[in-house]
Amino acid sequence: MIIVMKGGCGEQQVHDVSQRLEELGYVVNPIFGVEKTVIGAVGGKEHEKVDAVDQLRGYDGVEDVILITKPYKFVAKEYRGKKSVLDIGGVLIGGDEIVMMAGPCTVESEDQLFLTAERVAKAGAKILRGGAYKPCTSPYSFQGMGLEGLKLLKEAGRRYGLKVITEVMHVRKVEEVAEYADILQIGTRNMQNYDLLREVGQSRTPVMLKRGMTAKIEEWLLAAEYIAAGGNEKIMLCERGIRTFEPYTRNTLDLSAVAALSSLTHLPVIVDPSQGTGRRDLIAPMSKASVAVGADGLIIEVHPNPDHAIKDGAQSITIDAFENLMPELEAIAGAVGRTFKTPAAV
Amino acid sequence: MIIVMKGGCGEQQVHDVSQRLEELGYVVNPIFGVEKTVIGAVGGKEHEKVDAVDQLRGYDGVEDVILITKPYKFVAKEYRGKKSVLDIGGVLIGGDEIVMMAGPCTVESEDQLFLTAERVAKAGAKILRGGAYKPCTSPYSFQGMGLEGLKLLKEAGRRYGLKVITEVMHVRKVEEVAEYADILQIGTRNMQNYDLLREVGQSRTPVMLKRGMTAKIEEWLLAAEYIAAGGNEKIMLCERGIRTFEPYTRNTLDLSAVAALSSLTHLPVIVDPSQGTGRRDLIAPMSKASVAVGADGLIIEVHPNPDHAIKDGAQSITIDAFENLMPELEAIAGAVGRTFKTPAAV
Amino acid sequence: MIIVMKGGCGEQQVHDVSQRLEELGYVVNPIFGVEKTVIGAVGGKEHEKVDAVDQLRGYDGVEDVILITKPYKFVAKEYRGKKSVLDIGGVLIGGDEIVMMAGPCTVESEDQLFLTAERVAKAGAKILRGGAYKPCTSPYSFQGMGLEGLKLLKEAGRRYGLKVITEVMHVRKVEEVAEYADILQIGTRNMQNYDLLREVGQSRTPVMLKRGMTAKIEEWLLAAEYIAAGGNEKIMLCERGIRTFEPYTRNTLDLSAVAALSSLTHLPVIVDPSQGTGRRDLIAPMSKASVAVGADGLIIEVHPNPDHAIKDGAQSITIDAFENLMPELEAIAGAVGRTFKTPAAV
Amino acid sequence: MIIVMKGGCGEQQVHDVSQRLEELGYVVNPIFGVEKTVIGAVGGKEHEKVDAVDQLRGYDGVEDVILITKPYKFVAKEYRGKKSVLDIGGVLIGGDEIVMMAGPCTVESEDQLFLTAERVAKAGAKILRGGAYKPCTSPYSFQGMGLEGLKLLKEAGRRYGLKVITEVMHVRKVEEVAEYADILQIGTRNMQNYDLLREVGQSRTPVMLKRGMTAKIEEWLLAAEYIAAGGNEKIMLCERGIRTFEPYTRNTLDLSAVAALSSLTHLPVIVDPSQGTGRRDLIAPMSKASVAVGADGLIIEVHPNPDHAIKDGAQSITIDAFENLMPELEAIAGAVGRTFKTPAAV
Repeated sequence: MIIVMKGGCGEQQVHDVSQRLEELGYVVNPIFGVEKTVIGAVGGKEHEKVDAVDQLRGYDGVEDVILITKPYKFVAKEYRGKKSVLDIGGVLIGGDEIVMMAGPCTVESEDQLFLTAERVAKAGAKILRGGAYKPCTSPYSFQGMGLEGLKLLKEAGRRYGLKVITEVMHVRKVEEVAEYADILQIGTRNMQNYDLLREVGQSRTPVMLKRGMTAKIEEWLLAAEYIAAGGNEKIMLCERGIRTFEPYTRNTLDLSAVAALSSLTHLPVIVDPSQGTGRRDLIAPMSKASVAVGADGLIIEVHPNPDHAIKDGAQSITIDAFENLMPELEAIAGAVGRTFKTPAAV
Repeated sequence: MIIVMKGGCGEQQVHDVSQRLEELGYVVNPIFGVEKTVIGAVGGKEHEKVDAVDQLRGYDGVEDVILITKPYKFVAKEYRGKKSVLDIGGVLIGGDEIVMMAGPCTVESEDQLFLTAERVAKAGAKILRGGAYKPCTSPYSFQGMGLEGLKLLKEAGRRYGLKVITEVMHVRKVEEVAEYADILQIGTRNMQNYDLLREVGQSRTPVMLKRGMTAKIEEWLLAAEYIAAGGNEKIMLCERGIRTFEPYTRNTLDLSAVAALSSLTHLPVIVDPSQGTGRRDLIAPMSKASVAVGADGLIIEVHPNPDHAIKDGAQSITIDAFENLMPELEAIAGAVGRTFKTPAAV
Repeated sequence: MIIVMKGGCGEQQVHDVSQRLEELGYVVNPIFGVEKTVIGAVGGKEHEKVDAVDQLRGYDGVEDVILITKPYKFVAKEYRGKKSVLDIGGVLIGGDEIVMMAGPCTVESEDQLFLTAERVAKAGAKILRGGAYKPCTSPYSFQGMGLEGLKLLKEAGRRYGLKVITEVMHVRKVEEVAEYADILQIGTRNMQNYDLLREVGQSRTPVMLKRGMTAKIEEWLLAAEYIAAGGNEKIMLCERGIRTFEPYTRNTLDLSAVAALSSLTHLPVIVDPSQGTGRRDLIAPMSKASVAVGADGLIIEVHPNPDHAIKDGAQSITIDAFENLMPELEAIAGAVGRTFKTPAAV
Repeated sequence: MIIVMKGGCGEQQVHDVSQRLEELGYVVNPIFGVEKTVIGAVGGKEHEKVDAVDQLRGYDGVEDVILITKPYKFVAKEYRGKKSVLDIGGVLIGGDEIVMMAGPCTVESEDQLFLTAERVAKAGAKILRGGAYKPCTSPYSFQGMGLEGLKLLKEAGRRYGLKVITEVMHVRKVEEVAEYADILQIGTRNMQNYDLLREVGQSRTPVMLKRGMTAKIEEWLLAAEYIAAGGNEKIMLCERGIRTFEPYTRNTLDLSAVAALSSLTHLPVIVDPSQGTGRRDLIAPMSKASVAVGADGLIIEVHPNPDHAIKDGAQSITIDAFENLMPELEAIAGAVGRTFKTPAAV
């Protein structure tokens, strides 16, 4: 930890800070410059650092406090040394193969879901997405089919050989959702819902943690750390766009975060170009860019008739468009040394 | 609702959109311009509008869909016509008087809390703040004293004649917190935790809803609408800063939102200059600006010894500083025609 | 300067960085922690620091470089010790009195300008604003009356006893504008137009430097440093809102920056609530908040008939509204110990 | 144009707005809804629309004004119908081939520049980049070699068969820079320096317009429109990252803008992953993503010894790294049906 003292601060203030640091178990090393004094502090107890920084920042004469070790542990790259591969009932995420997740934004009916599931499975998708419990900005939006939707997802997955991912929003429904889904999705609005993070940390079902729309990369990794610290290390991250001033796209999909995460964490990273752009015509190009930048998978909203989708039709592609996209992604995957399974098997 | 069609879209597309609008119960009125066609649609069912916009945006040939009625109802200014005044056990919020809420970021001990409570009460504060359950970016930070902290808050409030506000983070603890607190605070990270919003909507305890750090004003009002739609209309809003690119302050306190809300909603608005700036030296000037802009109250972090606060010492002021600030705020309140009760009564 | 080395970096890397620092004239002081090494460096030549940070950041094994002295000098608080007061032909800016600048966004005609000037002068304004050369997002917008507008401004100022401020956008017109105006305004889009900053640095006419809509406080002060380093120290800053995700207001007026600047710089600070909010109804409350937070003056767009203004009518108030606002601001000024001259003299 | 009136506005207000629209040459078509009235207006003079919107927004009773035609013309996709291909002395930009621009951030010496030029040319680059006049946040940074640097660039280009791109910052140096460079670069800080845009609009040298770090896509296209309206239609755009809250990267490279531009404009689009990320290790992955998303070229900072670069070493790659990147990009280019010329010739 580095404590930067204000210019003109007195000896007493340097002494007070140093003493407090020593109380906290640090070895203290002040550097007296011409204009400013800087105090280097090494040691200290791992778990108390975050709070110590907070405290010292308020001290008289302190200008800034800089923590030089990463505040997360279980999700850090160093913890594993190599990338994690999650085994979702035989589907590997984080390995050589790029995994496709596809399906409707919202489960609307058996027909809609089963038709989509059948065709995306044939096109090469491995995981079926679909919302049963939906987080909605407005209380007057359709909030999803709930348990009925979960049952349809499980049955569609079983019938077409797909694993299932769906969002869990309620701490009291984690168990219920885990009964029907293979992956629990934590949505962007809940990335810092610590109550929910702790609850899925207690689960043994894999979790996909979406980036908060305003979360810094470090905050996102700390949210993942909550889940890991709870005992569930089967975590993948999902970049889904951040909020910026640009109104043309719904969010700004931050692909540099995908590249950055590969040096910060061992967790696999998925990209959601549907939420990330909010525009149907940008999904294909951003999917290709995601594969090129190193994503381990994509999650795409696909609907048999997006113009009649209950939700998010504007960011859903048709099943045909999904089928057409697959060989394009396969070509990029090949160009970056990854594997990608397309309808060949059909 | 206005549907803007893309330049060069065909008659068929205008027809399809119009037909769908009629199915949804709208009266349709297309305007054919030289470059573009625009479809005006009036009527439609109140609660289906939000989803309809979403759907139509994805239609072939549609460039944009603009909803021209506000998507919220119970919290809209028009619903009441005049400003709401909340009665918190005799303390009125939203009336002529500007109400001060003060206390430590985190309840640390009986001594710390009681000393603070006693002195802020004498200085004119009406409501005691203090965190018992704390939302922390890191799982390794101190997470609060929990139930023990709630008991101390209630006792301190009772002893010094203060009402109590504290954060509730867990849907399963809403009842417990409501037993000890007079106002339930929903924190910035939970502004879109709809599970929690619905739960406090079931409660009859007043709620203070903090603005999400990345929430647009409309999203904030829609979050309040969740609570109101659940049956709890005793809501106040709290501006606490938004996330921007500026690193000097922890957040950017958006005082124009406070002014804007006075024409959009009947709900009272509180300002939190501690969270809003993250810097002790900015609390006094931003408190004064908040009163000048029309806030109904302030919530300020006060600590007997901020340099030893467990959390957020950097944004807490000393009790002395709080006492000194009070007459300054009283002067501003007078200048804008509001009342403000200072230690005079003591 | 603090150089934070990456975890696991070798001795050679620490040596390379240390050697380079010594070449640059620093005294080097490495601190070896358990996880990381940190190098403290004191001394170094003032003017080379900014570039040195840039260079070292790219070194192998370097994680971060932190400059602990402020990168600006002439505009820093310490340079003067106390606040600067600018004397604009007898109107003092930065002293006890809060100075009002008012006038139309754009000079449109003699009638419009003279009517406005006469009445804002009577209401207590000291400085007349008005655009002669206008920066426009679109090349098809009205670009201002140019020289003709400058002449009208000077004449209106002379006749009604007002000093004149107007924007200069072209390096080749600095002299021309300085001939007619008492203060040169640098607009938000030109805050980092270094060519123009150097040009006005050569002038002896006072300058008002508006904050770039995306400028951090430090970048803003560095832009002011360009002007000061050129020899023109008669500078005032103008907060006019920053760009954020919030669409309700045109910009987010950052009043905490005004408070922050009082500890960072000796320069006076003006607030522009017209540009800052883009909404007529927010100008009065944000003006009051600006005075409360410590602004040295306000610059407000006033138009005899905003509904027919060529530009920015939406953020202009009527002359009547300006007259009504003045006593309100006087009351706030009194409450914060500042003076404010209203129509009393009339 | 659509004018949305406020709920509860009276007939007189609708009449006033309608009358004003008719004065401006519009055909007016009001739609009276239950809650609100909306006025559709078609026609109007092309060049007056932008100002008309501005005016009407301030009218009494007006809630919002929405312009439904694009405010730019020459740079719009529709103007050409197909993508433009710029011929830079035989190097085609915007055609099938992806063009590489490479070179040091700043021209430092003949040795540094010539060594870099020779090797990037051999590796397949077609255009040499290098700063002679540098825009610097601090007045104390090295501001570039100026004319001397321009001469070196021209000579290096001539010797190694490269075209030259360099930044022009000063309106009075456009001619000088155009004498030595094949492409004039307008930097991010000058994207809305209209004085400079008009000046390069008078030139016949091609221009690369970088996106302002805070510019919306529409504003960027309007800035390009300034150049085109001045008579110079040889324009390419360069995405170089926008400013967001994320501190890990220097900017957030917005690749969705690259995809979006392909439907909005006929101009070629280049990506700058060096400025866009500010981190050496992210340049390769983001370059690959840029090619995948549809960029027409890349501009990359390459330095023989980035650790000793005067500027931006942190975001420069070594010549070796550049050579290694080229075949990777070639593979991606092939996967998206583009051509890419690599060292084959060597």
